[in-house]
Amino acid sequence: MGSLDTNPSTFVCTDDLDSSFQPLNAEDVRSYLHTSVDFICDYYKSVESLPVLPGVEPGYLRRLLQPAPPTSSAPFHVTMKELRDAVVPGMTHWASPNFFAFFPATNSAAAIAGELIASAMNTVGFTWQANPAATEMEVLALDWLAQLLRLPPSFLMNNRTGATGGGVILGTTSEAMLVTLVAARDAALRRMGSNGVAGMTRLTVYAADQTHSTFFKACRLAGFDPANIRSIPTAADTDYGLDPARLLEIMKADVAAGLVPTYICATVGTTSSNAVDPVGAIADVAAAFDAWVHVDAAYAGSACICPEFRHHIDGVERVDSISMSPHKWLMTCLDCTCLWVRDAGRLTGSLETNPEYLKNGASESGAVTDLKDMQVGVGRRFRGLKLWMVMRTYGAVKLQEHIRSDVAMAKMFEDSVRADDRFEVVVPRNFALVCFRIKPLQGDMLMTEEEAEEANRELMERLNRTGKAYVAHTVIGGKFVLRFAVGSSTQEERHVRSAWELIQKTTTEIMDQGREM
Amino acid sequence: MGSLDTNPSTFVCTDDLDSSFQPLNAEDVRSYLHTSVDFICDYYKSVESLPVLPGVEPGYLRRLLQPAPPTSSAPFHVTMKELRDAVVPGMTHWASPNFFAFFPATNSAAAIAGELIASAMNTVGFTWQANPAATEMEVLALDWLAQLLRLPPSFLMNNRTGATGGGVILGTTSEAMLVTLVAARDAALRRMGSNGVAGMTRLTVYAADQTHSTFFKACRLAGFDPANIRSIPTAADTDYGLDPARLLEIMKADVAAGLVPTYICATVGTTSSNAVDPVGAIADVAAAFDAWVHVDAAYAGSACICPEFRHHIDGVERVDSISMSPHKWLMTCLDCTCLWVRDAGRLTGSLETNPEYLKNGASESGAVTDLKDMQVGVGRRFRGLKLWMVMRTYGAVKLQEHIRSDVAMAKMFEDSVRADDRFEVVVPRNFALVCFRIKPLQGDMLMTEEEAEEANRELMERLNRTGKAYVAHTVIGGKFVLRFAVGSSTQEERHVRSAWELIQKTTTEIMDQGREM
Repeated sequence: MGSLDTNPSTFVCTDDLDSSFQPLNAEDVRSYLHTSVDFICDYYKSVESLPVLPGVEPGYLRRLLQPAPPTSSAPFHVTMKELRDAVVPGMTHWASPNFFAFFPATNSAAAIAGELIASAMNTVGFTWQANPAATEMEVLALDWLAQLLRLPPSFLMNNRTGATGGGVILGTTSEAMLVTLVAARDAALRRMGSNGVAGMTRLTVYAADQTHSTFFKACRLAGFDPANIRSIPTAADTDYGLDPARLLEIMKADVAAGLVPTYICATVGTTSSNAVDPVGAIADVAAAFDAWVHVDAAYAGSACICPEFRHHIDGVERVDSISMSPHKWLMTCLDCTCLWVRDAGRLTGSLETNPEYLKNGASESGAVTDLKDMQVGVGRRFRGLKLWMVMRTYGAVKLQEHIRSDVAMAKMFEDSVRADDRFEVVVPRNFALVCFRIKPLQGDMLMTEEEAEEANRELMERLNRTGKAYVAHTVIGGKFVLRFAVGSSTQEERHVRSAWELIQKTTTEIMDQGREM
Repeated sequence: MGSLDTNPSTFVCTDDLDSSFQPLNAEDVRSYLHTSVDFICDYYKSVESLPVLPGVEPGYLRRLLQPAPPTSSAPFHVTMKELRDAVVPGMTHWASPNFFAFFPATNSAAAIAGELIASAMNTVGFTWQANPAATEMEVLALDWLAQLLRLPPSFLMNNRTGATGGGVILGTTSEAMLVTLVAARDAALRRMGSNGVAGMTRLTVYAADQTHSTFFKACRLAGFDPANIRSIPTAADTDYGLDPARLLEIMKADVAAGLVPTYICATVGTTSSNAVDPVGAIADVAAAFDAWVHVDAAYAGSACICPEFRHHIDGVERVDSISMSPHKWLMTCLDCTCLWVRDAGRLTGSLETNPEYLKNGASESGAVTDLKDMQVGVGRRFRGLKLWMVMRTYGAVKLQEHIRSDVAMAKMFEDSVRADDRFEVVVPRNFALVCFRIKPLQGDMLMTEEEAEEANRELMERLNRTGKAYVAHTVIGGKFVLRFAVGSSTQEERHVRSAWELIQKTTTEIMDQGREM
């Protein structure tokens, strides 16, 4: 650089600019990305043979890599070598076909391509003007997905009904909970005529005890009083779903005590056991109190694109908001949580900001949506692209096929468990998660509940130590239970089959040792 | 699938599983990603010639794409064609070398590669066990960056001093503000002996009026009383930085009124004009009140890896937390905001959750960090990878060169503005942002402030309509000012030069028209 300007009065020249470093020069971009694609293809090819759960000790990485940043640059293959040699061996491989823990983080070629392109274009679409295409693509993708889920038109941004629905893509369910909690909180304070937040101590929120812990955390983040956050006990009689009668009773008691019911979180497909809270019945209860109802369908929402599972969100037309995460079960890599609200104005009323440096004609015209006003932060990635690319490339039929294939594999696993009388399926399987355990009664041998828990813990630990399967656990109704979640995107029937054989074999070993003692 | 099992008693067979759809099959992954890499290389090659700000009207995308999701799948090239034909023309091109708005979203080949690999591995490292490598890589990357910034050892996770520092990578500065606000809020309530959140109405927070609007929003999200959120006026005498004497006065008055000063946000490099609040002096004021001090160095923090800019965060050893965003100026694609806290226990004390299904031996041992306990949500991407890959590949020297090159280009632009007596630089340039305007006094012509504002607005709008530059604005001390932010990762000196020539030419046209009227 530093070429002399022919018209010095026009431009002040400098000679000391070193622009030789071009972080996006074409050669590097192509070569680094091709190297990365090769790495990814090799990774997918080999991931089946890698231990799902690594055997590394805390602090292992620091012992392999240098403790301080390098001064000089290095060829990209040096970075990649350290990635292969130091990082990969310490990973828990969520992409492994032998991953059955938590919920699968499903993924697809189209989603990865979408994320790649978005990260290269690297736009920050806080307002419509800051990226019209990203804003409109996000709204379109949300409207498409809402149609797949048969959400009521009132939730759509472009519903031509004059309604005020709207959607936004966020990073996590927790953020969807937080922003709706804040909107509900502010609405309740306004209704109470609260002076500032003075009324906060009277606001109450409700959820079943099976609700994800992040909900209770979101309530605390939003300033709700810990004493007013109701975790309502559930039991086997409702398959651990929230009992609307019990909810009504508790809300009535709170009102009688001078409190103000503000928000109810209903979960469709709990993390622990895939329990389903009855959405419609909960909405009916809430209506009497003017409380906000949010549906958290993070995992199971994806299944509702299939008509046979759609009934799980029946009543959604009477709730205030619903969120689900395509990054869980709709083959869209992290992060992508979709939130729809029936009255977008209640959300933006609490979340809108309007600093001078973001003001622009489009926003002032009122003709556009500025998605920053429906989320915690200002900056935002172009997340709509990958979600749209998944739907555009695969289409509804393949997406449904994907869900049904996972559910069928889970059913197959469930049937196998049921066919082996050493085990029991602890709660009905609703989607692609099977909750099971070694039963206390084993033929002529009766274990105490403590011994059964010990046997199941031992089973989980031995399975996970093999590196051939990763299974997590939960506690349901006081029982220690193994969670077997089907659906990693590289998984096929044979992997589920192998895992079951490993479970059977390991259980036999544990039981034999138990008998010998 | 559906092959017959040779041992039916071992496994229940099903015949109706259709596993033919493999969303991560090797052929698709390689072909979709190669197509995407070609697209990206073409995009970077052509982005200079695309209008930076598109001329599309609200709703344009819906008119180009189908309103409902497709039923059937489509070849990937169909998706890519729609991306090229419908999405790209509606984009604001942050990657354009002619982008001078907001702050640049800098990027690099190494960062994109890191994001690509992370999205393909698609792990969810909420706990150490859920991905040891991702957790340890994030901590390592934060420790490396802390060393580049010469943060005090007390902020490092692995500081060997027995201290309790820690860091986490979040999505946005807003989240960093929110989680530290909540930690400070809870600590203040505990100190007050508040019964639940009853004391909330007495807690006060402080920031200069130049602080990003998202701070005031974060305060509301965390439940602070709007009446207790102090936006402290600044003026030209401190270059719009917070005046510590004024802060002290206001905090004292609040204490006298029975309020409890809880949190101060100091900004190093405000969004509006790159003003710098004096970190050390603010920490000294805060100490008397036991108030939490957070430093928001979202943009300018990156410059502090150069010794000549490091003084802007002098005093950081006395604050409670600092955040900066490599996704702004450290060539790391969105999103990547680094937060360091001096006492990680205060953060996790407010943010920890411990549901049964996430319990594991490593967490219980206390030997590991579970990063979910330092953020809003549970799920988390492997963001540490791209940040590490940027530092590992480019090294400290190239990163510093990148900062210095941008600052030198900005200085060159500033010198040009100063050399043309139709313009004035409104506030001193600290980093790579130049705030300037057409002066009211033009030779023998004196405009009113309103006329000057009109001329500057007209200049901005004409520039942006050309598609050859995108410049945003702000208001400083009541004056409408153009913000010229240098540093898009494809930018070279010639682009800054062209933009300045366009500014001069357009200003001449506006002034000539003004004289004719």
